[in-house]
Amino acid sequence: MKRERGILIVLSGPSGSGKSTVISELLKRRDDIRFSVSATTRAPRPGETDGKDYYFIGRDQFARMADQGAFLEHAEYVGNRYGTPAGPVDENLNAGYNVLLDIEVQGAAQVLKKRPDAVSVFLCPPSLAELERRLRGRGTDPEDKIKSRLDTARREYEQAKNYAYIVVNDDADTAAAELDAIITAGLCRSGERLKSIQEGVISI
Amino acid sequence: MKRERGILIVLSGPSGSGKSTVISELLKRRDDIRFSVSATTRAPRPGETDGKDYYFIGRDQFARMADQGAFLEHAEYVGNRYGTPAGPVDENLNAGYNVLLDIEVQGAAQVLKKRPDAVSVFLCPPSLAELERRLRGRGTDPEDKIKSRLDTARREYEQAKNYAYIVVNDDADTAAAELDAIITAGLCRSGERLKSIQEGVISI
Repeated sequence: MKRERGILIVLSGPSGSGKSTVISELLKRRDDIRFSVSATTRAPRPGETDGKDYYFIGRDQFARMADQGAFLEHAEYVGNRYGTPAGPVDENLNAGYNVLLDIEVQGAAQVLKKRPDAVSVFLCPPSLAELERRLRGRGTDPEDKIKSRLDTARREYEQAKNYAYIVVNDDADTAAAELDAIITAGLCRSGERLKSIQEGVISI
Repeated sequence: MKRERGILIVLSGPSGSGKSTVISELLKRRDDIRFSVSATTRAPRPGETDGKDYYFIGRDQFARMADQGAFLEHAEYVGNRYGTPAGPVDENLNAGYNVLLDIEVQGAAQVLKKRPDAVSVFLCPPSLAELERRLRGRGTDPEDKIKSRLDTARREYEQAKNYAYIVVNDDADTAAAELDAIITAGLCRSGERLKSIQEGVISI
């Protein structure tokens, strides 16, 4: 039987949100998740595999793809271009996998503009107070560095309201359970379900 | 600690959708669900308890409450008035319970107009063919009654697109798991979470 089409999940979280632990807990719960692989113009580093860590492509090809709208989002950092190619994402979605895009806030905003049906989740560390406690607890950082990191965290929190969902990572397992539920709910959205019904994947 | 405010869940399903089984499976999964109790002008039947089965009220009181906008929805059936009083629903929501409103499509539409933040779920039997089989399987209903119920079900399916979520009840446990996930996701919506953060129930 054909599987229901998957959904695109856009996940952002500031540094310190514990995103990688939450993702690894999520993968214990679901086997229908695939990750998006980014394309980049930078040279591969030792140990990096093309098509797994990144798609390593030339600047000309990158520019052509950008012109053709082949990226869900793209940006330039320190002279190299990075982008999320739509093709592999759509192949996975069509095959019935849910595609997780682990991406910072500006890239997320670009993706959500192109794919308003994507489910967006902002992952928060437990609290600013807790972050401050951790930073001061180290007893190594100068006051201005602590202040600057707290300011960055506050600015990133400001973006949380632009996401459909906020998961607060008090506990990685609870946060993963919430992310799991958000994905299941995403698949139950009436737009998705009516498409599956029309395509005969589900019959009513 | 104060609990997060609960959410209002509006659940509709045609007769034969297996709603009561799904609800009882849901209650095994969550202990934060409360049901809304309807008010009615009809007389209590033997065994019915005021405030549990219904709030039994007079026509004058009903009319006054309707005028004051004290109902989330109300309707008249065969000479009696029925309505969902907002007061007890809000008390439960404020106490941190998720309130489940098991309600037909017209009532659901009224509630969603008054409470656009409510999470709406349409429960489908697996197929009209299966619904027909279930109705005939009972062996109790006359043919014209079965036909009329199937017509009603077809009309109700047309409304499914007006709900945020559609759960297809192929299997009651899977359907309950999906409903459970939809509620959890509802609590993670950024609007809800930002309110909790502002109210200091969650600190970030």
